[in-house]
Amino acid sequence: MEFTFTVNWGDTDAAGIVYYPNYYKWMDNATHHFFNKIGHSCVDLFDKQRVGIPLLETHCGFFSPSFFGNEIVVTSGIEEIRNKVFRIRHTFQRGETKLAEGYQVHAWTDFSKDFPKAFPIPDEVRRALHEHMIE
Amino acid sequence: MEFTFTVNWGDTDAAGIVYYPNYYKWMDNATHHFFNKIGHSCVDLFDKQRVGIPLLETHCGFFSPSFFGNEIVVTSGIEEIRNKVFRIRHTFQRGETKLAEGYQVHAWTDFSKDFPKAFPIPDEVRRALHEHMIE
Amino acid sequence: MEFTFTVNWGDTDAAGIVYYPNYYKWMDNATHHFFNKIGHSCVDLFDKQRVGIPLLETHCGFFSPSFFGNEIVVTSGIEEIRNKVFRIRHTFQRGETKLAEGYQVHAWTDFSKDFPKAFPIPDEVRRALHEHMIE
Amino acid sequence: MEFTFTVNWGDTDAAGIVYYPNYYKWMDNATHHFFNKIGHSCVDLFDKQRVGIPLLETHCGFFSPSFFGNEIVVTSGIEEIRNKVFRIRHTFQRGETKLAEGYQVHAWTDFSKDFPKAFPIPDEVRRALHEHMIE
Repeated sequence: MEFTFTVNWGDTDAAGIVYYPNYYKWMDNATHHFFNKIGHSCVDLFDKQRVGIPLLETHCGFFSPSFFGNEIVVTSGIEEIRNKVFRIRHTFQRGETKLAEGYQVHAWTDFSKDFPKAFPIPDEVRRALHEHMIE
Repeated sequence: MEFTFTVNWGDTDAAGIVYYPNYYKWMDNATHHFFNKIGHSCVDLFDKQRVGIPLLETHCGFFSPSFFGNEIVVTSGIEEIRNKVFRIRHTFQRGETKLAEGYQVHAWTDFSKDFPKAFPIPDEVRRALHEHMIE
Repeated sequence: MEFTFTVNWGDTDAAGIVYYPNYYKWMDNATHHFFNKIGHSCVDLFDKQRVGIPLLETHCGFFSPSFFGNEIVVTSGIEEIRNKVFRIRHTFQRGETKLAEGYQVHAWTDFSKDFPKAFPIPDEVRRALHEHMIE
Repeated sequence: MEFTFTVNWGDTDAAGIVYYPNYYKWMDNATHHFFNKIGHSCVDLFDKQRVGIPLLETHCGFFSPSFFGNEIVVTSGIEEIRNKVFRIRHTFQRGETKLAEGYQVHAWTDFSKDFPKAFPIPDEVRRALHEHMIE
């Protein structure tokens, strides 16, 4: 699954390169795009069911800096599906250059009560995620 | 080394909790605070020598959500020092509750040329970092 | 009322100066600080009463750029109080240098229902705001 | 000139609506999109000539809240062109609903020296801006 975006001016810092926490924002956007594409829009999940997918763990390695105006392609795939959590990997490229690669472990979470609580990923979602497994 | 801050309204998201990329922003702030305290201000490094400390790798685990107005204490220590890079660990707590823990691998980097380039950490900095090693 | 903060690395952009939308984030933080100081914490208002203070209008003029590490003092005062809205002015200074000045028009708003709705500012809050009127 | 984008999760706050400083970020993005479309890419201007367009003044009125996943159309036009500065107006709509409207006064600025300095807008740019004047 691919997601393409352009680096905005506000994503840069005084060193002239992207301020790296933006990669985590972009991974988040890529995950939302992924869910839209597999037919489980995060907007609908949250608006209709108060279900969100907060993070348990995230990691990113940075290989080459990115700059204002760069067009970046994120390739996303599922690495692991457990009972209440799944792990998605995102790879960032500008043309042939690999910029960064990371993963996010999301928990399927009910936000309808006072405190967020993880619960099992529904079978329908589980099946859709399985179709995008990577090694 | 401790760094304390308060969660701002703009750090939250529609689930009512902190939007997690902010933890990476806060790790960055905690690292800068750490360098100020050990006598090597990142402001001076960048302004006078065009030296910055971009990231090679970052990781964070999230244990409990944080909310608007929470006072959070970050405890930071050095885990590893290599020739051109060092690894710093940050632990986030609200009172007795551990919220998150992560690390960042920074490269000692020259930004005076067209493209950023890592170079060996000066001995003086290396010694200062050594005094804050954790296991 | 004064609020002091330091410019973080992530607040800058590739021109080496602060990315200006951050001034609006800082005005927001200064307003929250102001309410804490007058005894009406925005955290409590939101957590206990689902009352927030979203914006109707904002303006800012920028006089001199600010940079990473700058210590900035924001001076805040109330310019106008109407039935459901109030206007607060914020002036940003670094030492003797005036960096920026702006205002925000906030609406006293109930967020407990599906759609946010403004309602009259309580008398107790109104009185507290009056004590910080500026010309 | 139109620019379309979707509200990301990270743009929201705990009140469930967009955190308003994001409108200024979006105005900035819309201005960059505008310059791309009139043939004067801000990326090229900055990379090749160290020319940027920092803000002198900004204003925004907020009429209706926006939410995660909303598709928003920004319509942009030039309101005024002076020697070194120009004023651009941005109107935000979700379908038929007007969400916000604001303007930004940008200065044509040289960032090649130690301190940013405004200079006259080149005639070629001036002519391109004139073709997008609004009343």
